[in-house]
Amino acid sequence: MEQKGLKELAICRVKQGQRQAEKDQVAVEAPLTIFLNEQELVTLLSSPRDIHYLALGFLRSEGLINGTDDLASVSVDGERNIVFVQTKEQENLAEKLYGKRTITSGCGKGTIFFHAIDSLQGKPVTSTLKVKGESLFLLMRALQERSLLFQSTGGVHSAALADEEQIIIYNEDIGRHNAMDKVVGECLLKGIPLADRILLSSGRLSAEVVLKGAKMGLPLIVSRSAPTSLAVELAERMGITLVGFLRGGRFNIYAHEERIL
Amino acid sequence: MEQKGLKELAICRVKQGQRQAEKDQVAVEAPLTIFLNEQELVTLLSSPRDIHYLALGFLRSEGLINGTDDLASVSVDGERNIVFVQTKEQENLAEKLYGKRTITSGCGKGTIFFHAIDSLQGKPVTSTLKVKGESLFLLMRALQERSLLFQSTGGVHSAALADEEQIIIYNEDIGRHNAMDKVVGECLLKGIPLADRILLSSGRLSAEVVLKGAKMGLPLIVSRSAPTSLAVELAERMGITLVGFLRGGRFNIYAHEERIL
Repeated sequence: MEQKGLKELAICRVKQGQRQAEKDQVAVEAPLTIFLNEQELVTLLSSPRDIHYLALGFLRSEGLINGTDDLASVSVDGERNIVFVQTKEQENLAEKLYGKRTITSGCGKGTIFFHAIDSLQGKPVTSTLKVKGESLFLLMRALQERSLLFQSTGGVHSAALADEEQIIIYNEDIGRHNAMDKVVGECLLKGIPLADRILLSSGRLSAEVVLKGAKMGLPLIVSRSAPTSLAVELAERMGITLVGFLRGGRFNIYAHEERIL
Repeated sequence: MEQKGLKELAICRVKQGQRQAEKDQVAVEAPLTIFLNEQELVTLLSSPRDIHYLALGFLRSEGLINGTDDLASVSVDGERNIVFVQTKEQENLAEKLYGKRTITSGCGKGTIFFHAIDSLQGKPVTSTLKVKGESLFLLMRALQERSLLFQSTGGVHSAALADEEQIIIYNEDIGRHNAMDKVVGECLLKGIPLADRILLSSGRLSAEVVLKGAKMGLPLIVSRSAPTSLAVELAERMGITLVGFLRGGRFNIYAHEERIL
């Protein structure tokens, strides 16, 4: 796909009290609209690159499709930033998505979030993957080297699927979750399995990141940044090894340390 | 409200190939459920502090309430993290929120995002506020000094309302937008006007941040981090001065530089 993640702007730079008119590059943010079975489903603010990956990864992460077998067609209107997805079965999938947001139970736990946990229960990740600590440093360095948009704008997150040796699929987006969904979408389209693999992220490890990882059966999630309490609890419960603060020659293991040698 | 933003965990720290069992503090992430007129409206994953501010700020930012005059009652169940809000008029406000997400227009521009812009059109911010560049450095330093959660966990964002002299209202949250909504909610409850004031943020300046600012009539938004292209376009259009990358004695003005002296 075309490189259109950056935009040059005229800005005013202020340094030691002096103003200067300059050019600066910022990360492009644009609305991506997903149509599912001719129905307008959702609009995501995102980096307008690889939008077909983002659309498919989003649909997969939200549980609206399970794989390419569910797809009848995917087409992209790059001009207007729209992805049209047709599934083979024409059930009302949009209802399913909005059903998750409207909350039916009257008790305090009847929330989208706990529904998500429920749907995962009984399926912890059982991968026997083991990875050397040193490999994680090399992978994270590779992630940072790949992050060209970030290097010029400071405004995007990167995510990658890797094995112990190398990065397999890489992407980036102004949104942390979008970057991850782009990776998921590309894996889906190319038939690349996520089980027994490593997810690398430049961003913070929140509950949503771990939930997405659990749905994909990912055994190991690694980030340069901090985890939240709920991310740790979920990782513990779902059998996922969670590594955070990987930087400056050190890292912390927050859950399931048995996969790190 | 009770301080419950931190949680101590047993972790495994790896440094120069050596493993060590240690204690670490992580930012708490928990589901906050908002009930509006006895209907469960939405669940936000957030830091479980000042949840009544977050709930009210969210309702205000989403346009479901305009001020305290709309409120009949607000009550908090701190145990289960639920905020119950009753409005005086019992119209179906939840429909309004979900109506924004389901997208009615068939053309590429019929999105939540462009609806949001439409709703702002014709109301650019006209504040005559002018602020010295040096004041921004002092305010950003004050923001960083206030951010206690971040200092111990590295996992939260901070936001504040300020005038040129000082921070007026401060809050923090694992979510960038939640931190901002907490500030909005506290201002709402305490009757603190946002017009002619400065919004400080630790996080990136995306379209949503500028949209929220525009709805509140904020003339100046300042961050340590990068803006996106859409944030800059919106700020330009809505008459908001946008300052980014304020760090190390310098900053960039991306829109409406006339307010910085």
